[in-house]
Amino acid sequence: NALSEETNGRKCLHTLLVERQEQAERSVLISCQSGATGKKFLKFLSKHGDIKKYFFYESYGFNAVVEFASRDGVASLLETTTIPTVNHESLVPFKSRLLSLRNLSSGDSNPSSGLQCQPQSTVPINELIQKLSQEESIDQQIISLTEEYQITDENSRLRFLVCSLLKDVAAAYFPECTIKPFGSSVNGFGKLGCDLDMFLDLDSISGWNVKMPKSGLFMEYRMKRTNSERAVTQSVLSVIGECLDHFGPGCVGVQKILNARCPLLRFVHQPSGFQCDLTANNRVAMKSTELLYLYGELDPRVRRLVFTVRCWARAHGITSSIPGAWISNFSLTVMVLFFLQKRNPPIIPTLDHLRELAGPADKSVIEGNDCTFVSDFTKIQLRRNTESVELLLNEFFEFYATFPFSRMSVNIRKGKEQNKPEVAPLHIQNPFETALNVSKNVNATQLERFVALCQESSWLLQQNEANAPKRGEAGGGRTPWGLSTLLLPSQVASIKSRKR
Amino acid sequence: NALSEETNGRKCLHTLLVERQEQAERSVLISCQSGATGKKFLKFLSKHGDIKKYFFYESYGFNAVVEFASRDGVASLLETTTIPTVNHESLVPFKSRLLSLRNLSSGDSNPSSGLQCQPQSTVPINELIQKLSQEESIDQQIISLTEEYQITDENSRLRFLVCSLLKDVAAAYFPECTIKPFGSSVNGFGKLGCDLDMFLDLDSISGWNVKMPKSGLFMEYRMKRTNSERAVTQSVLSVIGECLDHFGPGCVGVQKILNARCPLLRFVHQPSGFQCDLTANNRVAMKSTELLYLYGELDPRVRRLVFTVRCWARAHGITSSIPGAWISNFSLTVMVLFFLQKRNPPIIPTLDHLRELAGPADKSVIEGNDCTFVSDFTKIQLRRNTESVELLLNEFFEFYATFPFSRMSVNIRKGKEQNKPEVAPLHIQNPFETALNVSKNVNATQLERFVALCQESSWLLQQNEANAPKRGEAGGGRTPWGLSTLLLPSQVASIKSRKR
Ligand SMILES: Nc1nc2c(ncn2[C@@H]2O[C@H](COP(=O)(O)OP(=O)(O)OP(=O)(O)O)[C@@H](O)[C@H]2O)c(=O)[nH]1
Ligand SMILES: Nc1nc2c(ncn2[C@@H]2O[C@H](COP(=O)(O)OP(=O)(O)OP(=O)(O)O)[C@@H](O)[C@H]2O)c(=O)[nH]1
Ligand SMILES: [Mg+2]
Ligand SMILES: [Mg+2]
Repeated sequence: NALSEETNGRKCLHTLLVERQEQAERSVLISCQSGATGKKFLKFLSKHGDIKKYFFYESYGFNAVVEFASRDGVASLLETTTIPTVNHESLVPFKSRLLSLRNLSSGDSNPSSGLQCQPQSTVPINELIQKLSQEESIDQQIISLTEEYQITDENSRLRFLVCSLLKDVAAAYFPECTIKPFGSSVNGFGKLGCDLDMFLDLDSISGWNVKMPKSGLFMEYRMKRTNSERAVTQSVLSVIGECLDHFGPGCVGVQKILNARCPLLRFVHQPSGFQCDLTANNRVAMKSTELLYLYGELDPRVRRLVFTVRCWARAHGITSSIPGAWISNFSLTVMVLFFLQKRNPPIIPTLDHLRELAGPADKSVIEGNDCTFVSDFTKIQLRRNTESVELLLNEFFEFYATFPFSRMSVNIRKGKEQNKPEVAPLHIQNPFETALNVSKNVNATQLERFVALCQESSWLLQQNEANAPKRGEAGGGRTPWGLSTLLLPSQVASIKSRKR
Repeated sequence: NALSEETNGRKCLHTLLVERQEQAERSVLISCQSGATGKKFLKFLSKHGDIKKYFFYESYGFNAVVEFASRDGVASLLETTTIPTVNHESLVPFKSRLLSLRNLSSGDSNPSSGLQCQPQSTVPINELIQKLSQEESIDQQIISLTEEYQITDENSRLRFLVCSLLKDVAAAYFPECTIKPFGSSVNGFGKLGCDLDMFLDLDSISGWNVKMPKSGLFMEYRMKRTNSERAVTQSVLSVIGECLDHFGPGCVGVQKILNARCPLLRFVHQPSGFQCDLTANNRVAMKSTELLYLYGELDPRVRRLVFTVRCWARAHGITSSIPGAWISNFSLTVMVLFFLQKRNPPIIPTLDHLRELAGPADKSVIEGNDCTFVSDFTKIQLRRNTESVELLLNEFFEFYATFPFSRMSVNIRKGKEQNKPEVAPLHIQNPFETALNVSKNVNATQLERFVALCQESSWLLQQNEANAPKRGEAGGGRTPWGLSTLLLPSQVASIKSRKR
């Protein structure tokens, strides 16, 4: 599956991003309103160039991502693409790689005939629970959950394509810019349906490097001046936001959230179905993403445990899709990583150790923060730890059920709890901006809910182990057991009342 | 001078616009903060390509327009252009053809040494009056005023360059668009310092013409839909306005006036000093402009009389730079044209006659309005009328001093007054949108002021004729006479009281 070691080997995230971005530039997104089946569709498009990959999916109708072997294929297709004729409406004549396939002959009937669609969202929780109940062991349940939930190859392509389409909008004014996905879309911990976090990278604008003469005449661009980088970011996002709102086909509900700590645009990209957050010059977040990706690649148990904990937390309302005093997925992930660093022997190394392994090319200081860590996976020597994920899950619950949150801070840089520098209920040191607390937003109630749930889940899991199916016994109609029970809010609640 | 028959022959406006636009695309606008004199300046720039034309002018410092022989010159210059280094500010990295020439050696001192500047605004009214008083005849005064006031070749180039710079901003999203100046910037009646009216032409967007197949599959762009052309115009202007405001170097005070009958952006372009109005898809206004240009080219008296009347009206507050219940320059111009059609024999033909002369290529229907008229000047046969401009000015005042405004409408289509279709104090039929009244905004008080001033000016001019200097008598220190008196508000006011 996407971004997993199986398909991509052990590439560093940067290599992967470059590959995916390049694929995306050769791709188009097509809404299939016609009755074209796969064959007719392919024949029509192949006239414009070799097709390397294509797939269909559903989002407000049927859509296809088509990757040509070269950009010429895209150019050729666009040359024959018409501007729609509309009757009682008018069009904003903004051309992009978002297209509609239409069929004069069929009258656009029967759009879905013969199309095999790739899922772009997770199965409903009930289905997941049923599915998990049929597995033979908790370890197997965890693997199954990870496979059901993680971003697919197709979903990843679609994410990069959306970035590429949005890049075209920004590139109109900043020709050398790129838009890069970060966060769970690429860190290896994203589930199908998670939001698409992107940042606009203006740092590659050329001309910064044109040599100035030592003396004599020289020419400069006249540019608008503002009193801070932040104001520049706000300006750039404001214009792009206006543009997406007025021109961007399929971009709806564009909100400009320019006064946030990190100014951003939030909107829904309908043709892909993604909830999008676009920031600018957010390079520290990219580094966090690389780090999380690296940890996820080091040992398969990392990703499995993170997926399981994230899924469990969401099922019980410990995390939420709306911002608030809840623990965020990012905080939760850092907590899992910290826990894995604390195993004996540790399953993953500390961030300080990763920095020690870094070569000269890895050096990175962003806005005064040392973000250096090794990028070459082969340099990282792992300690031999053979604990099962089931055991780790249980231990995770135990660990945080008894963690001294009132005094200590979670710190993946040192891999050891540190004294809390501030009074926030939950303190998780930001890995790169070390003076910041990643979970500053979390209030005491939410932390208590988390701790209580860890206790109950640990207890429940121990009860459950006795319930595990015998070899060969798994099958349809089984009552939830193991991980399934952990994901049923009613179960945990009833255990809770029983315990009292 | 610019746009006059002397320099450009009798080109139709379209040909002229295309020429000027092409020049502008090969030009850059440079702020000269350095102490470079003309020679050093030229040497520096010539390294990038042959220079066809350049000139300096003042607007918030010293500036130069430089026209290269080819676009390659511009490209070569931009390649060596650096992004400014700023200390306590940040830059919006938007690159354009607005540049700054700097000098490391001189420390940017003495910026003006040896630069000869071309004026971009009219001489103050007092100076004009003095100058006119030294002329020997009223005819000569009128010629002199026209020459002092009309847009120069350089000013015209600067206007087209600003359009071209703004086009680059819009072309980011609409690659095939153009921005065209209209109104007094190009109709031949503009004075130095008049505003720069522009419209964004999106009609040339290609792809509207891609042939649709008769049957089978075809591809369409997905585009935002709105419920009217007006909404599209508003969207496009809104985005461009946001962009000018945030990115556009030198664009200040950007106002989005999107709910006007004709939505527009208003801003000041500081490097040129122009007050700018940018509309979109305003093709009827372009037709009015062509028509006015044509009338101005037919006979030199047209332009002279219009200049004189416009200048006189402004001196007495009959027209104003702020919108209100005043007569507009456009209305006033149409009134002059109408008056010239009413001479015996007529000095200029009616619009209906011009339409009759039109060939098939001239046919133009815009939004249901017939805007057809002849473009080939040689087809227009003028009647022999030898009246002097002095006489015409006097007759103009007489004509409107006694015009039956309460019943009749000014109509240049027929060249005859028509019964008023509505009750507005002043009715001037819009030449192309014939159901509209160009002077709908004018209230009774303003019309009365105009009529009274016509009466007084006519009387004053007759008094004055006796005062005309004898041949050879003109010279420094003369008291105002003739046209000069007409431009002195105090004079007219005192005559007014004397008359009563
Ligand atoms: N330093 C820091 N980075 C954060 C914080 N919140 C989010 N981020 C970064 O921004 C990325 C995107 O944030 P989110 O969309 O909230 O989280 P996510 O990891 O994408 O997970 P989802 O909930 O699946 O979207 C994260 O992966 C982090 O890299 C924070 O509080 N501090
Ligand atoms: N049909 C119509 N066109 C108008 C009207 N007002 C302005 N225009 C058009 O818009 C152009 C620009 O308007 P203005 O800037 O007000 O007038 P102008 O002719 O440029 O003269 P200045 O006062 O020197 O700017 C005019 O030349 C006309 O072509 C109007 O009321 N009706
Ligand atoms: Mg996210
Ligand atoms: Mg104007």
